Amino acid sequence: MSKKLLDNISNPEDLRKLNPEQLPQLAKELREFIIDIVSTKEGHLGASLGVVELTIALHYLFDTPKDLLVWDVGHQAYGHKILTGRKDNFHTNRQFGGIAGFPSIKESEFDAFGVGHSSTSISAALGMAIASNLKKETEKHHIAVIGDASIASGMAFEALNHAGVSKANLLIILNDNAIGIDPSVGAVKEYLTKVKRDKKLAVQNNIIKALNFDYSGPIDGHDLPKLLSELERLQSIKGPKFLHIITTKGKGLQKAEEDQVTYHAPGKFDKISGERIKKESSLFTKYQDVFGKTIVELADQNDKIVGITPAMLTGSSLKFMMEKYPERTFDVGIAEQHAVTLAAGMARQDLIPFCNIYSTFLQRAYDQVIHDVALQNLPVIFCMDRAGLVGEDGATHHGVFDLAYLRCIPNLIVFAPRNEIELRNILFTAQLGLEHPIAIRYPRGYGNIKDWEKPFERIEIGKGKCLKNGNKTAILSIGTIANNVSEAIKTLKHKDNFSHYDMRFVKPLDEKLLHQIFEKHPTIFTVEDGTINGGFGSCILEFASTNNYTNKVKLIGIPDEFIEHGAITKLQHKIGLDPKNLANKF
Amino acid sequence: MSKKLLDNISNPEDLRKLNPEQLPQLAKELREFIIDIVSTKEGHLGASLGVVELTIALHYLFDTPKDLLVWDVGHQAYGHKILTGRKDNFHTNRQFGGIAGFPSIKESEFDAFGVGHSSTSISAALGMAIASNLKKETEKHHIAVIGDASIASGMAFEALNHAGVSKANLLIILNDNAIGIDPSVGAVKEYLTKVKRDKKLAVQNNIIKALNFDYSGPIDGHDLPKLLSELERLQSIKGPKFLHIITTKGKGLQKAEEDQVTYHAPGKFDKISGERIKKESSLFTKYQDVFGKTIVELADQNDKIVGITPAMLTGSSLKFMMEKYPERTFDVGIAEQHAVTLAAGMARQDLIPFCNIYSTFLQRAYDQVIHDVALQNLPVIFCMDRAGLVGEDGATHHGVFDLAYLRCIPNLIVFAPRNEIELRNILFTAQLGLEHPIAIRYPRGYGNIKDWEKPFERIEIGKGKCLKNGNKTAILSIGTIANNVSEAIKTLKHKDNFSHYDMRFVKPLDEKLLHQIFEKHPTIFTVEDGTINGGFGSCILEFASTNNYTNKVKLIGIPDEFIEHGAITKLQHKIGLDPKNLANKF
Repeated sequence: MSKKLLDNISNPEDLRKLNPEQLPQLAKELREFIIDIVSTKEGHLGASLGVVELTIALHYLFDTPKDLLVWDVGHQAYGHKILTGRKDNFHTNRQFGGIAGFPSIKESEFDAFGVGHSSTSISAALGMAIASNLKKETEKHHIAVIGDASIASGMAFEALNHAGVSKANLLIILNDNAIGIDPSVGAVKEYLTKVKRDKKLAVQNNIIKALNFDYSGPIDGHDLPKLLSELERLQSIKGPKFLHIITTKGKGLQKAEEDQVTYHAPGKFDKISGERIKKESSLFTKYQDVFGKTIVELADQNDKIVGITPAMLTGSSLKFMMEKYPERTFDVGIAEQHAVTLAAGMARQDLIPFCNIYSTFLQRAYDQVIHDVALQNLPVIFCMDRAGLVGEDGATHHGVFDLAYLRCIPNLIVFAPRNEIELRNILFTAQLGLEHPIAIRYPRGYGNIKDWEKPFERIEIGKGKCLKNGNKTAILSIGTIANNVSEAIKTLKHKDNFSHYDMRFVKPLDEKLLHQIFEKHPTIFTVEDGTINGGFGSCILEFASTNNYTNKVKLIGIPDEFIEHGAITKLQHKIGLDPKNLANKF
Repeated sequence: MSKKLLDNISNPEDLRKLNPEQLPQLAKELREFIIDIVSTKEGHLGASLGVVELTIALHYLFDTPKDLLVWDVGHQAYGHKILTGRKDNFHTNRQFGGIAGFPSIKESEFDAFGVGHSSTSISAALGMAIASNLKKETEKHHIAVIGDASIASGMAFEALNHAGVSKANLLIILNDNAIGIDPSVGAVKEYLTKVKRDKKLAVQNNIIKALNFDYSGPIDGHDLPKLLSELERLQSIKGPKFLHIITTKGKGLQKAEEDQVTYHAPGKFDKISGERIKKESSLFTKYQDVFGKTIVELADQNDKIVGITPAMLTGSSLKFMMEKYPERTFDVGIAEQHAVTLAAGMARQDLIPFCNIYSTFLQRAYDQVIHDVALQNLPVIFCMDRAGLVGEDGATHHGVFDLAYLRCIPNLIVFAPRNEIELRNILFTAQLGLEHPIAIRYPRGYGNIKDWEKPFERIEIGKGKCLKNGNKTAILSIGTIANNVSEAIKTLKHKDNFSHYDMRFVKPLDEKLLHQIFEKHPTIFTVEDGTINGGFGSCILEFASTNNYTNKVKLIGIPDEFIEHGAITKLQHKIGLDPKNLANKF
């Protein structure tokens, strides 16, 4: 279908040539364009559909890229990308070598700040606005667009607390659609819901006004004339200001409006009906579902078990527990810091908290892991999904630092399951009662064992496992990268020379096993899907140093660079972690 | 002076035998007791004086330790410690082997949750309150006492957002004295100030009510009868509730009330007049002042320089810059996450931000360092004060994880100065313009060079330095622990055998120098005042592994345990980092 307006727009300058009356038609075309591409190429859908009008209005009225526009998280920035020079590449979205799924300063001057994790936009835009003040660029506008789930996160509040007393020329736009990836939760969400029902409440107990902002709204974020006139009014107001708009996630595609959780990132779908195109159903199970199903089984037996997620109820599959045990399951919103210390408080009162946080997001609660959990040696069970390379989400989301940043923390047990059964059994083991907190890191995506739902077996803490016996070279792996190692060994000419050990625990190390390994094998390789610097391999080096071993030890893992987006197999190939490259190294 | 009431109180049970009319007298005695001890033994003064009445009222009315009481940060918990079994040991406060300066679960059953870093109390108490609900202990009370500076931190807001929609039996007491260590800042502070001036404002735009809490106050926190009656009323209300009390930091000692910043932790003072007893003035300068004075010098020349601190204006000595360049200096409150991403936004617009955060507190902004700064390779300059062992503040505050958690981050330069001149020169070098962000970590306390204010010299990035030439054993140190190494070498019999290198950069490593070192010395020691696990030594092991060196490499540093409080020299002795122990190891 020809999109007569959009066809002629490559960048905001083209957009600004339109009459305001043409913008609703452009919105329609932009929405169709997004649906066209995402329906076949996959990606995040709902968020971008919800801000089509806002995206157009902002680039129409503001002088981007001089005026600086920061999209929080960036799931909603597809329209922005399409209108700012990336229309013709948009079909490469999230693919290896293609454009990124999130705004990125490397990609475009229109991406004022790279994003991916939530709630950074106000801080970044405020920093830029203060810079403009100091540079006497007082006409410049600085805009942060942030969702209602993200604004309830602590970091955003810290930024509001600062911005409210600054003289920065900052416009914060709250894109209130009452949902993040899962429906928003918490007191702020309830407050916003009340405000929407009864606009008089926007006058009373107004949090934003209490924080010193010029507050306006709530207005309909799909009403282009209203948006344009309100934004124009705000352009002339100096200082920090706040516009509250109401939008519908998935707007314009009925199915996406009706099932907003699924259509956050629906996979392939029919662009007319919206029906999802079912993938061939896998014989295997996602690791997240191994976690989600197992925790319910365990909770059936052990009523001390509670589950906590910071806004990843669906992504972590903790939703299974929420369905069965809502009173023992806690979605605390995008609040990793709070989630961890909440878990510590619960553990202090003898509950058994499973705190499920993606590897990359636990970075947000690093101090809480050290200061509130490990220092007090409270047996919180951290379930770190999306560890290692995560694929299409790219550099902001790879969970590759965890082994390095966790293994320096005293008292903490660090475990990585090789497969679904190991994950299942460590979850079982952890709830039997540990003397220490434990971090269990497992990857995104599917396992490869059909019948993983075996009777539970207790895992001995600090025990590794020999997977294959050889006598010259030992390969020590941690976690599911063991599969690549096994495949690699199969292709080797002198495969009998090679031993393969799944060390399982980065901490405590299986020192007994390591002594056996070092005594038998002159050469040792370590393989991990985490950063080489300070990771699993480096603790094997420390063991060797402590025990005066002079074996040759070689480390294989993620090099010292940020890894871009693309299919995991392609990324592994690029950095030498695929079976073929591994075989060449051994 | 005899304290006839306090003399008979060892724990809250004794306290509860008093009549309410006796409590003001007890408050007087408790205040005198705190002043008596702190005036000679040193410690945190102002905060505890401010909550004497609250402390008495809470233990009088609530059934501690069954009812669970969490003090945020814990600077204010001296009265609590004295009334809960630690009166006779209180003179050992903060000393090696003595009681801790903060509540600690190891120390007393009355310390419901260990604290030290700010803004954890609401999360912890909420976790406990939820646990009580699940255990059907519905009569149990859970109390978080939090200051106005701490409640404006993101983590506390995340907890409020959750607590407001919970059914937890949680009482949050806002101890509003308008000051943290430095005066509070930000929009919340302005809001609270308005509320205090005009109590009608507590009705309008009430942030706490908007978050679903039963809000009461503000009331005078020094008025015991009022406190008691309001707390009694709140005891009978189920669910989350919030009491706002106004107190004066330093209450009862005139000097401490007048100069609240100094009397946060005033050192020794005359207990009657309050006059501080001047220490012999040191010939040397504190590292924080080397930073504080140098940044002003640099800012004089380079107007792109800005300074950022999250609520450590005095402690970091950024106050010098605030005095001279208030428009370029930003105290953002207890908001490490925001501070880092604000700096990233400023760097993105070509300012040169010096973001000064204590090593232990940068743990609070770990994700922002990775995701907002390093991933975008924005040249933010992190100045990490209080790195290494910090002494009396103890386990919560030692800055010993930083080298391990930073060196796995791509793009980041990690530097530790050996002395004041090196610190000065790296600050100079950093503002000349780097291609990467840099983390500069330096210790608490004094240097040892009198005339450190020399003309600036540029430091070549990634260049280490030979301090002493030998030919058998090389000792590689990082940062100021070099001084202990030098002293140790002096005592060795065969001192000529020993080389000593200050590697300066943990990242990038000086590989050229390392090749020389490994080629010349069969044995190599690494010495650092950070965790051995994953720290500086382990990157030397990685270098050896990469380059097939078989030299004997031994790592010396902080062992894999949390280190308690006490004088730094005593702690170093205990873990073997003092010159004598080092000499024994070499």
